[in-house]
Amino acid sequence: MTYCLGILTATGLVMAADSRTNAGVDYISTHQKLHDFSIPGERILLLCTSGNLSVTQSVMTLLHRDIKTGEAVTLHTVGSLYEAARYIGTKMREVQTLDRPWLEKDGIDTNCNILLGGQVEGEQPELFLIYSQGNCIQASHETPFLQIGEAKYGKPILDRVLSFETSIEDAAKCALLSIDSTMKSNISVGPPINLVMYETDSFKIQHSLRLQLGAPYLVQIRKTWEHCLRDAFEAMPEIDWEIKSDRVLLEEVVGK
Amino acid sequence: MTYCLGILTATGLVMAADSRTNAGVDYISTHQKLHDFSIPGERILLLCTSGNLSVTQSVMTLLHRDIKTGEAVTLHTVGSLYEAARYIGTKMREVQTLDRPWLEKDGIDTNCNILLGGQVEGEQPELFLIYSQGNCIQASHETPFLQIGEAKYGKPILDRVLSFETSIEDAAKCALLSIDSTMKSNISVGPPINLVMYETDSFKIQHSLRLQLGAPYLVQIRKTWEHCLRDAFEAMPEIDWEIKSDRVLLEEVVGK
Repeated sequence: MTYCLGILTATGLVMAADSRTNAGVDYISTHQKLHDFSIPGERILLLCTSGNLSVTQSVMTLLHRDIKTGEAVTLHTVGSLYEAARYIGTKMREVQTLDRPWLEKDGIDTNCNILLGGQVEGEQPELFLIYSQGNCIQASHETPFLQIGEAKYGKPILDRVLSFETSIEDAAKCALLSIDSTMKSNISVGPPINLVMYETDSFKIQHSLRLQLGAPYLVQIRKTWEHCLRDAFEAMPEIDWEIKSDRVLLEEVVGK
Repeated sequence: MTYCLGILTATGLVMAADSRTNAGVDYISTHQKLHDFSIPGERILLLCTSGNLSVTQSVMTLLHRDIKTGEAVTLHTVGSLYEAARYIGTKMREVQTLDRPWLEKDGIDTNCNILLGGQVEGEQPELFLIYSQGNCIQASHETPFLQIGEAKYGKPILDRVLSFETSIEDAAKCALLSIDSTMKSNISVGPPINLVMYETDSFKIQHSLRLQLGAPYLVQIRKTWEHCLRDAFEAMPEIDWEIKSDRVLLEEVVGK
């Protein structure tokens, strides 16, 4: 399993990914899921991948190959993030066309999803989710984050804390907490965690971090967060079982 | 969708359920998912249901019918919670045998899960999850809670806060927060929320609550929780992008 997320805020972009892949619980390995196709000073293109590893690796290889062989359309020539997303979608379709009939014969899931975040000169930063089918959606001011993979455990914290106005520093913290919550509940999501923070119009990635298992900061945020959560829990008002307006006889509640 | 959970602690039992059912996003209705088969003074039996509504309703009807017609084995005659779980499992199999071939023809999911919590005189309180297949598992000191339905959004709070030693009052609060987190992230889980708290050896349900949409307490816990979470978030240490041991050059992180 995988968990990756991207957050787009008023001042920049955060991309984060775990590194664990598994083929069943008895075959766990570590693979890079955060990929950089940027040209510093001109364009920032960060990709996070989830799903069938053979498919996503093939897609990454094709994206690199096109740049190397100087094709007309590559991640280094497209004029916008949207074009980049569409182009990545065509590569995903290409690989699926190649492998899907064979994988499906043996009931193997060929699904994959890709997050694409970045900025092309002359445009605003954008964040896309490219589906396995090759189509895409985009983060917006109302929903400034996109997730792929094991998304549910890490969503409550994003829902409660994030908005488009959140600072990118806070968005980065929130991304780490979201991944940590996921690692706590799903053992198939695991470190190292890769985190990249990009400031709008800088066309340079100044902040990137890889947190290994047991990294002091990772241990510290988990401890602090659990401590704070327990404090928050302590501060919750007691349940008033006598509330007149809400209280009903048990017979009503359980429909006897 | 549904979300129900049961929590077994050293001093008692908490059972909670939402009430929303849906057949697609355009057909939402409200159905009781918490069912009481207790005999006060003698046995406490609380059931929460999730999954195909026609299956779970049929199972409930059969459970009631057996009591009414005075069958040898019913929820009122079984000698333990385990026997009750096994008996419920046979009823689930019975209904599935009846309906499954017809539902499967049209690709309709017949899955259902049932939580069973309670106490039979002479035994300790127990909590079971009965699977769609009729088999069951049991909550333990290590994992004192069981969930059915849309379980992921509400699990992080349980993982961080709950243990077998948690007081039942705190377990009840935690159950409400877990349901509230789920309602926030999945619109197909919704109020009224039914909550029952049972104290070991009392053989009487003294505390039960139904919280409607907009119930003051529900609004209050959501507001307080969001406020506390933001405070907790503020208290998190800033990311130290310069940490030597964890920091790597971007080229390393993104595997250029």
